[in-house]
Amino acid sequence: MSAGDIVRELGRSGVFGAGRTSKAAGVLQKMIESDATVFLGLAGAMVPGGMRRVVAEMIRDGMVDVLVSTGANVTHDLMCCFGIARWRDLPYSSDAQLRERGVSRILDAFIDEKGFTTFEKRTTGLLESCLGSKGISRISPSELLLEMGLRIEDQSSIIHNAAKAGVPIFIPAFTDSILGMQTYFYSQTHPLILDVLKDLGRIIDLAYKADPSGAVLIGGGVPKNFIFQSKLVAPKGFDFSIQITTDRPEPGGLSGATLDEAISWGKVDPGAQTVTVYGDATIVLPLIVAAVRERLGARLPRRGTRR
Amino acid sequence: MSAGDIVRELGRSGVFGAGRTSKAAGVLQKMIESDATVFLGLAGAMVPGGMRRVVAEMIRDGMVDVLVSTGANVTHDLMCCFGIARWRDLPYSSDAQLRERGVSRILDAFIDEKGFTTFEKRTTGLLESCLGSKGISRISPSELLLEMGLRIEDQSSIIHNAAKAGVPIFIPAFTDSILGMQTYFYSQTHPLILDVLKDLGRIIDLAYKADPSGAVLIGGGVPKNFIFQSKLVAPKGFDFSIQITTDRPEPGGLSGATLDEAISWGKVDPGAQTVTVYGDATIVLPLIVAAVRERLGARLPRRGTRR
Amino acid sequence: MSAGDIVRELGRSGVFGAGRTSKAAGVLQKMIESDATVFLGLAGAMVPGGMRRVVAEMIRDGMVDVLVSTGANVTHDLMCCFGIARWRDLPYSSDAQLRERGVSRILDAFIDEKGFTTFEKRTTGLLESCLGSKGISRISPSELLLEMGLRIEDQSSIIHNAAKAGVPIFIPAFTDSILGMQTYFYSQTHPLILDVLKDLGRIIDLAYKADPSGAVLIGGGVPKNFIFQSKLVAPKGFDFSIQITTDRPEPGGLSGATLDEAISWGKVDPGAQTVTVYGDATIVLPLIVAAVRERLGARLPRRGTRR
Amino acid sequence: MSAGDIVRELGRSGVFGAGRTSKAAGVLQKMIESDATVFLGLAGAMVPGGMRRVVAEMIRDGMVDVLVSTGANVTHDLMCCFGIARWRDLPYSSDAQLRERGVSRILDAFIDEKGFTTFEKRTTGLLESCLGSKGISRISPSELLLEMGLRIEDQSSIIHNAAKAGVPIFIPAFTDSILGMQTYFYSQTHPLILDVLKDLGRIIDLAYKADPSGAVLIGGGVPKNFIFQSKLVAPKGFDFSIQITTDRPEPGGLSGATLDEAISWGKVDPGAQTVTVYGDATIVLPLIVAAVRERLGARLPRRGTRR
Repeated sequence: MSAGDIVRELGRSGVFGAGRTSKAAGVLQKMIESDATVFLGLAGAMVPGGMRRVVAEMIRDGMVDVLVSTGANVTHDLMCCFGIARWRDLPYSSDAQLRERGVSRILDAFIDEKGFTTFEKRTTGLLESCLGSKGISRISPSELLLEMGLRIEDQSSIIHNAAKAGVPIFIPAFTDSILGMQTYFYSQTHPLILDVLKDLGRIIDLAYKADPSGAVLIGGGVPKNFIFQSKLVAPKGFDFSIQITTDRPEPGGLSGATLDEAISWGKVDPGAQTVTVYGDATIVLPLIVAAVRERLGARLPRRGTRR
Repeated sequence: MSAGDIVRELGRSGVFGAGRTSKAAGVLQKMIESDATVFLGLAGAMVPGGMRRVVAEMIRDGMVDVLVSTGANVTHDLMCCFGIARWRDLPYSSDAQLRERGVSRILDAFIDEKGFTTFEKRTTGLLESCLGSKGISRISPSELLLEMGLRIEDQSSIIHNAAKAGVPIFIPAFTDSILGMQTYFYSQTHPLILDVLKDLGRIIDLAYKADPSGAVLIGGGVPKNFIFQSKLVAPKGFDFSIQITTDRPEPGGLSGATLDEAISWGKVDPGAQTVTVYGDATIVLPLIVAAVRERLGARLPRRGTRR
Repeated sequence: MSAGDIVRELGRSGVFGAGRTSKAAGVLQKMIESDATVFLGLAGAMVPGGMRRVVAEMIRDGMVDVLVSTGANVTHDLMCCFGIARWRDLPYSSDAQLRERGVSRILDAFIDEKGFTTFEKRTTGLLESCLGSKGISRISPSELLLEMGLRIEDQSSIIHNAAKAGVPIFIPAFTDSILGMQTYFYSQTHPLILDVLKDLGRIIDLAYKADPSGAVLIGGGVPKNFIFQSKLVAPKGFDFSIQITTDRPEPGGLSGATLDEAISWGKVDPGAQTVTVYGDATIVLPLIVAAVRERLGARLPRRGTRR
Repeated sequence: MSAGDIVRELGRSGVFGAGRTSKAAGVLQKMIESDATVFLGLAGAMVPGGMRRVVAEMIRDGMVDVLVSTGANVTHDLMCCFGIARWRDLPYSSDAQLRERGVSRILDAFIDEKGFTTFEKRTTGLLESCLGSKGISRISPSELLLEMGLRIEDQSSIIHNAAKAGVPIFIPAFTDSILGMQTYFYSQTHPLILDVLKDLGRIIDLAYKADPSGAVLIGGGVPKNFIFQSKLVAPKGFDFSIQITTDRPEPGGLSGATLDEAISWGKVDPGAQTVTVYGDATIVLPLIVAAVRERLGARLPRRGTRR
């Protein structure tokens, strides 16, 4: 059975998580076929969870036009670029013991403390190359990430593929990440303004012009809210939206809010095609993407051809 | 990409839901290769969710030796046998409106009230054929389900495949289902004792002798507890265990309890291979089963060859 | 601030979990004031979680007319009666280690293996007293639990209070518990039929006559389904229903199904007052019960006065 | 029963959610008694959920020294100040219908579209008063929020109480909110740099000096991560930490990560007193705060006395 067969099989019942996964593949396919501008929201620790290649290839294949992420995902992408990530499962008996051994844990993934020293050195070098050497003292996060991505030479990297494909990366809470902290330390010895208002204006413009438009939301958090609020001043809401999440509506936070709720705000169009899959994105996303790739094949827009 | 490729890809990171799904496929494969007696626990409304064929084929292919289920799953399997199930998504505005139209809802699946009348008639006929016509007035639920399964002629049916393959089906809360209610109504006009203690003895014996043994738990509830408690008086706990669930440990119920917790009780062996996938079984189970089927191919024990 | 003040304060916003908790207290109060027959469903491991006294006092105060439970809750209640329960938090490093020390774990509660030996001896004695000494060889679980409750002398016991108050206890999956296993072992040396169909008939009758009627559902599982299905053949569904649960609708199982879904089945009346609180019952239930007790005070029907 | 009695009662079992709620009250009390610098992280839509007064009074009573929030919480606090919030439950049949009526939904809370016009006008006036009239063209979000809070005259307001008490408010994703969008629109006609790096430096300094220190985390998201990462360069991690959340560890995101995991990073001290309550903060937080207020009474540090 191929990915496409499995997703078709899941769609036979049409209901529950299986039916929704199948519908989500259909909506993603429609987004691409109708040449919608696709906004991908990426929360959670998706790189340790194995989604680095999946997201990088989505960008390469033209499935994504705008990426909004937590700082952690880009920090972890850089860690992979720098060769300091060791995500695999490690036996341990307590976090206090890990602390003594200088190992930091993300669920069942692990990073050596030595990696952070390398990260600091390499990131500082990268910032120097992007900013200091060019005399730049004011930059928006998305502009900085473009510069970084152009200088990274890792074909599996999210930010490298985004830079090559002209896909802007927005990180609204840039200072809320280890990359943000390094940027702060850099700013202690170099003049630097991080122009976050500029990025807000940029995504508002992108959302305004995008027609048709689609939102693919992996988890909730700031990425989901930032993508959705960008439509508050647009002529109409998203025409397509997929959400893959383990968050639920009941606590009232935006992370788990239904896509219907977004209709009341005008973030999603009342006539939009929408699906929420309640499930682990590290399982569901690769399955959906593989199925859509199988179906579209040569019709995938690929990097560079869409804008 | 085939199912096997996708599961291998999920296993590359080794962590999070993706890594656990990949490990779960590995443990299921090991169970079968080591000729373990496999106890499958089936909670939730898995038939509307599209798992009827998946479970029926697992039984046919020799992946299951003992099935423990809620009454709902068997009730729904029979509804399919009787041609009265319509699971597909139906537009509606309120449950009160559905009630007026005589439609009962299971999340986004639906059953017509007329179906219940057919169900009553057909089930009564089946009970008459299994019990009345043979003068049986005392039977255990697993014995009754065997008789029913032998009389059902639907190749996609769970109970039919189980009967053919000699796989016993235990429903500890038999009276807690529409099938149970029909059996009660039947008992109002026919002498009938449902011998639930006999079934408890039967599964205790099966669990005692099973060596090696494996537990595949879809959801929690009574099926999980009944399978696990059957090991309380066995020489050792399960050698393998997979759990696919959306329940969590924190509320303290057995449904979401970790497989490690079961080690403290002796239900699972301290040296066992275990994996819990926190996710929607209607997505995860078909993926795992397809991958294991692809890997084992002709080495699958198939129906009838294992016991 | 008193319990009543806190619940009133929670109700000020009227929304989210706070608002629902406040509404749930209001609906419970209404059930009691309108002299509804109240069916309490008790899933999860509520006794280790501290709810033994809360439930026992609800019964004593006349807040409950019919109790449907998992076998575990009654097993744990008996363990407390026998003085062998030690629920308190115990430091440990692994479940394998606990296994070696003969300690069984329920989340962060613990039972010594020695306790099981006592449980076996005491339960066997109790069964002998209830059945053997009276020459009873056929009994329904609710009848057996009444006999046991009458012989227990613990004022904090759930089954003792239920027996005193004439509140029947139904355990549809009686064999799915350690108490059920002991009953099975007893049946190996004594003639015994556990008449589960009789109990099904009994609750169907109770649900048929109850008017008005209310359902208070702590967790899902068999207790919730058994209470709801008892209304399938009643003239009308429940007039009141409260659900406190950590289960969610999305996986499609009945445990997390909304109370609205139950309307489509006729289990809950379209005009019923219903509230679902998504939260930990060990926190929410004591709060609601304390508030209702404070509000009703002397108007509580107390044990024995309601039927 | 008073709040203190209820929490004591919850602590009797010592386990499950009840036990953890009781322990959380104990840890919060210890934080305050040991004069720790308390960092409160506030995610989710806590104002519609009724927590505005609870948080404002925690600040007034000296239970909080540093507040880290989503932009939404402060946006909603301002909406209340401007008298345009109507959070109460509203009957409706679909979000498309709400859209037509100009009503935006947050779970079961609602905002009229007219409110947004008022919000725009009032916020613009406030920004003009804080910035334009004083010739300020570069400000950090926490500095801006202080200026705003000083100009607000609502005794129930979070930002007003924080300003009065000298409690800084950090919003790392300031542009990810309606307040952020208004600030952007203001910046289109006035020179304005939002200095986010300055705020990062400020919290790093606060976390460095805080000894002892405590973290109270309501939900996860950016507030939790920003508070925890502030300790990455501090001499030691938090000495106390409470987390009230509906997020779980299994998906791997930081929001649901255990407090133990934070020990491996040095964010929480290996010897720290920590408790996670898995539950709805709109129920749990008021209960804990009421119990601590009852216990400490006159010993509460109150506004202005702690720093």
